[in-house]
Amino acid sequence: MLSEHKLSLAAVGTGAGWVKHKLLLTDANPDQRKKAMEFVRGMIDFAGKFGAPTIIGSMQGRWGGDVTRERGLEQLAEAVGELADHAKQYRAPLLFEPLNRYETNFISTVDAGLDLLKKAGSDNGRLLCDLFHMNIEEQDIAASLRQAGKSLGHVHLADSNRRAAGGGHTDFAPIAKALRETGYNGFVSAEAMAGPGGPDEAAKMTIAAFRKFFA
Amino acid sequence: MLSEHKLSLAAVGTGAGWVKHKLLLTDANPDQRKKAMEFVRGMIDFAGKFGAPTIIGSMQGRWGGDVTRERGLEQLAEAVGELADHAKQYRAPLLFEPLNRYETNFISTVDAGLDLLKKAGSDNGRLLCDLFHMNIEEQDIAASLRQAGKSLGHVHLADSNRRAAGGGHTDFAPIAKALRETGYNGFVSAEAMAGPGGPDEAAKMTIAAFRKFFA
Repeated sequence: MLSEHKLSLAAVGTGAGWVKHKLLLTDANPDQRKKAMEFVRGMIDFAGKFGAPTIIGSMQGRWGGDVTRERGLEQLAEAVGELADHAKQYRAPLLFEPLNRYETNFISTVDAGLDLLKKAGSDNGRLLCDLFHMNIEEQDIAASLRQAGKSLGHVHLADSNRRAAGGGHTDFAPIAKALRETGYNGFVSAEAMAGPGGPDEAAKMTIAAFRKFFA
Repeated sequence: MLSEHKLSLAAVGTGAGWVKHKLLLTDANPDQRKKAMEFVRGMIDFAGKFGAPTIIGSMQGRWGGDVTRERGLEQLAEAVGELADHAKQYRAPLLFEPLNRYETNFISTVDAGLDLLKKAGSDNGRLLCDLFHMNIEEQDIAASLRQAGKSLGHVHLADSNRRAAGGGHTDFAPIAKALRETGYNGFVSAEAMAGPGGPDEAAKMTIAAFRKFFA
């Protein structure tokens, strides 16, 4: 269907792994971690058919209770390394998404994300940078995108309040400039919530922002 | 002690009501709501001795489960009206703080906060605007402060990432301008987390930001 319409699949998420199946790559229970790995491997195999990357976001979990920060970070790095290597056969990277402090206490910044990729050890892991999360966590969004540099695999475009670009106060000009100057040529896809004008308005706002800043 | 040192108490929070005692003004259980009211009344009586206002923040709770949005908002408005009236005897307002979407699903914006104050019906309720929460929720922080206008009772100064002003990417110049132009002459107090430089550095950053933008 995608090729019929000359569309390509930007990336495949694994949010359902956590939201629907309660699977985390850092679960204290090894059986659950194994199931989480199987779930993501299945998503990689699916996405791979379209040459699309797979995203690890909420499946990173959070530390607390039975999960210590140190042990969890080790397990996460190991998982990301293994899954990124698995994705190689499809010539598509594994995308790791830092989430804001309310959604995880593991990896919330580009800096921490780069550290994780380094520990993971695969050459096929990249960061997915979501501008909504970055608005909360990064000291300087454009500078962090530059820091991500060649490890930047995907950008989720959303405004400061997670509405479509233009619905909040994020200054997109320096962001677009940073992406151009670091030679980023991957996808910038919209992940935003509809505002008062509904999804059509959100789509129109996003298209206008793409044209203005990223064309 | 405060008067000895020529300090004044800016405001008294009620976060412990929720964090420590699990008391919410919107609890489905009427006994718990009654306890929550008693707790806040006690804080108002304490703060009142110093002529200081009391803050309702996390005690607003969230809807879901046994608590419907509509019923919770009614209870919240009623509670805020009653508590604001109770604070009148101390010539100090009751401050209501909108919190970002992760901390409440009731009141997250100035717009919703103004609505609540209107429904509450007291002339002694004001908004506490926290710049960290506003960075996530407001389309335009300065415009929202102008909208709050005479209902603005207090400002919590924090940067986009909740570090001290200067530690994130918030543009404080238009914010300070909006506060000047609306004739705001209340407190701007720092509520921020220490960064890598520790609390001393956070205090220095805050003082520098005050001098630069708010002096």
